[in-house]
Amino acid sequence: MPSLHANTGMQQIVDFILELDKLKGVTRKVRPLGLDRYENSAEHSWQIAMLAASLAPFAEPAIDINRVIAMLLVHDIGEIDTGDTMVFAESGWDERKAAEQIAVERIFGVLPEPQSAMFLALWREFDEGKSAEARFAHAADRAMPVLLNLANNGQSWRENGISHERVVGRIGPPIQAGCPAMWKYLETRLEEARRQGWFGA
Amino acid sequence: MPSLHANTGMQQIVDFILELDKLKGVTRKVRPLGLDRYENSAEHSWQIAMLAASLAPFAEPAIDINRVIAMLLVHDIGEIDTGDTMVFAESGWDERKAAEQIAVERIFGVLPEPQSAMFLALWREFDEGKSAEARFAHAADRAMPVLLNLANNGQSWRENGISHERVVGRIGPPIQAGCPAMWKYLETRLEEARRQGWFGA
Repeated sequence: MPSLHANTGMQQIVDFILELDKLKGVTRKVRPLGLDRYENSAEHSWQIAMLAASLAPFAEPAIDINRVIAMLLVHDIGEIDTGDTMVFAESGWDERKAAEQIAVERIFGVLPEPQSAMFLALWREFDEGKSAEARFAHAADRAMPVLLNLANNGQSWRENGISHERVVGRIGPPIQAGCPAMWKYLETRLEEARRQGWFGA
Repeated sequence: MPSLHANTGMQQIVDFILELDKLKGVTRKVRPLGLDRYENSAEHSWQIAMLAASLAPFAEPAIDINRVIAMLLVHDIGEIDTGDTMVFAESGWDERKAAEQIAVERIFGVLPEPQSAMFLALWREFDEGKSAEARFAHAADRAMPVLLNLANNGQSWRENGISHERVVGRIGPPIQAGCPAMWKYLETRLEEARRQGWFGA
């Protein structure tokens, strides 16, 4: 009865894409410029995919920018179950990663193959952070909230008591490792921001 | 003085990505499931990129799914200047397209080359809608609000007085042209929705 199977997988894809709608309700700590609300993880995922694409000329020649973009589109999907945790959280990082792993197995598991395994592999590659593509993706992901904070007079740093030292110590190494030109730019801007008093104590 | 130019283009990329932040404030007519607000065009762009990636096994073999995803990430950026217009608007479509063209030339013009020309070419390919990639991208873009409406008991169709006939007439041909399996699925679901009374008069 092949006609019964003509749309095999379509309902699963629909179930998956509607499940993803929940990422629009996961809020982060930065406000979009000029808006009186917090950013959500869905629009953030779009913006960092655009940032990575815009930074492509700064990527090592061997980097597959399409895989970077795909990783960035899926990297926060586990937050549907776990919520967003600020990168400056001091503890609970391992527990959070374990919970996110369970979450993405559930969510990508809604899909048929090969899509389910493909998205899970992208998520894991980002999570491990070892490939050149994953390092470039991490640099875009870490740089974006810094760029928004620099344009927002340090809004989320001040609201959450984050110091200049903590920002530089936490985001400097991954951005330097993934996109040295971006770190060179940010280092100067962050030093200016420190002089302006845009950090927490 | 080469060192002065070491970050050539970085400030332009930063200016561009902060300009893109405005797309988070462009609202559409559908509400995310379970949220008491309208969807914005940034999170929509993320979701349709994920829909296209999830539908990849339904694409013709020659389709470059990465170009589809890139097109979907940039296709709504002109709305930063023009706002969103519902696909069911009866008139003003040509004027709107001309205004969007001017908008994307301004916005992508913030970037250095080759990024500026690359994004503009992607936007134009989507706008023209002729390549197999553009047709597949249009199918994902048109299908997504229908899927949300079907999950929302026809929320935006009822709020905006959109009939079953108008939905089928406007979105059927582009979805059929770009992703026939998706249209086959939606045709049945839309007929069920009509019987449920989920459309406007």
